[in-house]
Amino acid sequence: MSPVLTVPLQLRFGDEDSYGHVNNARFVQFLEDARVRLLSEPGSGFTFLEVTDAGHYTLVGRHEIEYLAPLNFSREPAGVDVWITAVGASSFTLGYAVRDTTEPGAGTTCALASTTMILVDRQSGRPVRLNETQRSALGQWIGDGVPFRRTSGA
Amino acid sequence: MSPVLTVPLQLRFGDEDSYGHVNNARFVQFLEDARVRLLSEPGSGFTFLEVTDAGHYTLVGRHEIEYLAPLNFSREPAGVDVWITAVGASSFTLGYAVRDTTEPGAGTTCALASTTMILVDRQSGRPVRLNETQRSALGQWIGDGVPFRRTSGA
Amino acid sequence: MSPVLTVPLQLRFGDEDSYGHVNNARFVQFLEDARVRLLSEPGSGFTFLEVTDAGHYTLVGRHEIEYLAPLNFSREPAGVDVWITAVGASSFTLGYAVRDTTEPGAGTTCALASTTMILVDRQSGRPVRLNETQRSALGQWIGDGVPFRRTSGA
Amino acid sequence: MSPVLTVPLQLRFGDEDSYGHVNNARFVQFLEDARVRLLSEPGSGFTFLEVTDAGHYTLVGRHEIEYLAPLNFSREPAGVDVWITAVGASSFTLGYAVRDTTEPGAGTTCALASTTMILVDRQSGRPVRLNETQRSALGQWIGDGVPFRRTSGA
Repeated sequence: MSPVLTVPLQLRFGDEDSYGHVNNARFVQFLEDARVRLLSEPGSGFTFLEVTDAGHYTLVGRHEIEYLAPLNFSREPAGVDVWITAVGASSFTLGYAVRDTTEPGAGTTCALASTTMILVDRQSGRPVRLNETQRSALGQWIGDGVPFRRTSGA
Repeated sequence: MSPVLTVPLQLRFGDEDSYGHVNNARFVQFLEDARVRLLSEPGSGFTFLEVTDAGHYTLVGRHEIEYLAPLNFSREPAGVDVWITAVGASSFTLGYAVRDTTEPGAGTTCALASTTMILVDRQSGRPVRLNETQRSALGQWIGDGVPFRRTSGA
Repeated sequence: MSPVLTVPLQLRFGDEDSYGHVNNARFVQFLEDARVRLLSEPGSGFTFLEVTDAGHYTLVGRHEIEYLAPLNFSREPAGVDVWITAVGASSFTLGYAVRDTTEPGAGTTCALASTTMILVDRQSGRPVRLNETQRSALGQWIGDGVPFRRTSGA
Repeated sequence: MSPVLTVPLQLRFGDEDSYGHVNNARFVQFLEDARVRLLSEPGSGFTFLEVTDAGHYTLVGRHEIEYLAPLNFSREPAGVDVWITAVGASSFTLGYAVRDTTEPGAGTTCALASTTMILVDRQSGRPVRLNETQRSALGQWIGDGVPFRRTSGA
């Protein structure tokens, strides 16, 4: 079974828009917080979104997100499953499932998403290779691809 | 040449995060405002994000967004090009380019994106077919696919 | 000693602005979530920000907020103390202290604030009197005034 | 008559919360953008929120805001009047009126507010005295106090 970190995400009253559901752009913010949480796990080789080596940092290259069900504001936190789907030379891709509960495997999946992060040099802004600590840390979270329901480029 | 609506997007000081650039999730909010603008053009058959027929409304089905260059807070608005890339039976897809100026075709392209919207029935929540007014209005904005630089599912 | 509800407030990476601190406007959002939490405690006579009686709802009349120390993003939640400072005929005032920890009475107080809420009729938009259930529920949380350090109207 | 800068504030669909009005915390963000605009006028002695002298910057000390009428999302920008109500040794206070139009003196006043900003030293974090350029620039915008309708500490 795939290793997955389930991050509790406290909802805010203001996450809902005038449609009365959590706004679609807020989901993309939730991905960020789940990602920050995974990358700041002890021994990750990263510090929050920045690599420990202060000369490098990570940038978002792309997101893909599919909305499956509305999410509503609640006193109970949502749960964001986050894992790694691929590790490249200077980039890696995360997979996510946003669910309406933090209980593992339970509840309704409201969104599926993936993000490609790129490691860049702070001075030049150019991609740099992930080091062994980082590759090994990311490797512990490698799982399946994101089970998107629709195909890209529709 | 493709028809494109360029929507001026006033930046806010708070759009930047602690990296000193406009946050990646804010770009997804910018897409929303460009989309609302296009769908509320006179004769569009839509009212903001809602179809004039109050029994139907549109939902975001999926986003794909690629980040190409950082965008910084400025007194001058960014420009979001928005157009239609495809019209289906009960859905349609928008293409976007977020640029650091509202001048047509000028400046730096900071992000490319696409969104699939689904028309649903307010009661049942199920997809309903676009009517002729809507298809015709969307048809006026049909252009090329989004020139994403990376392939999906990396 | 004053009765106080300490609400854990999970911070988000994006709460920080380009100054590298939680943005001043986000604190005002934190007050909202603390308020929603207090007003949705069992037996409060309110449901989230709305009174159970669907014909009435509460509006923000005014805020006063004083910033005492910067707050930084952290994996650990901030703590928002919230209580009631006054109950009027159709309004009530909440007091808050935003601290950098949820541990009662500990940590650094980053902001002090107060909010006056007004109960209004959904149809007319005019103030209506708080009923006995609401007055009694609010009365359980009545404490001291907010110890603002600066005087108003500077 | 008081000198006032009227800043056009483009509304975003997501500024509205599930009550169907612009959220109360967003108004506080609008104040920030009006303030940034006033402080970045040519010859102001400030650069955005930072003083030109890179060793100093400004911090929000306190806000007071009174909500008078709901504001709704619209294609037309809101107008934020901003001026100076007081200049102290190391602080100054801004007054604001948020109106539903950019036309001077017209429309509905949705909120009145004031903010006290403090000039501090970047190294020590302690207040420093405003210099003559800054005092003179702020002096050009000095006007009346904010005509709040309710008294503080209600």
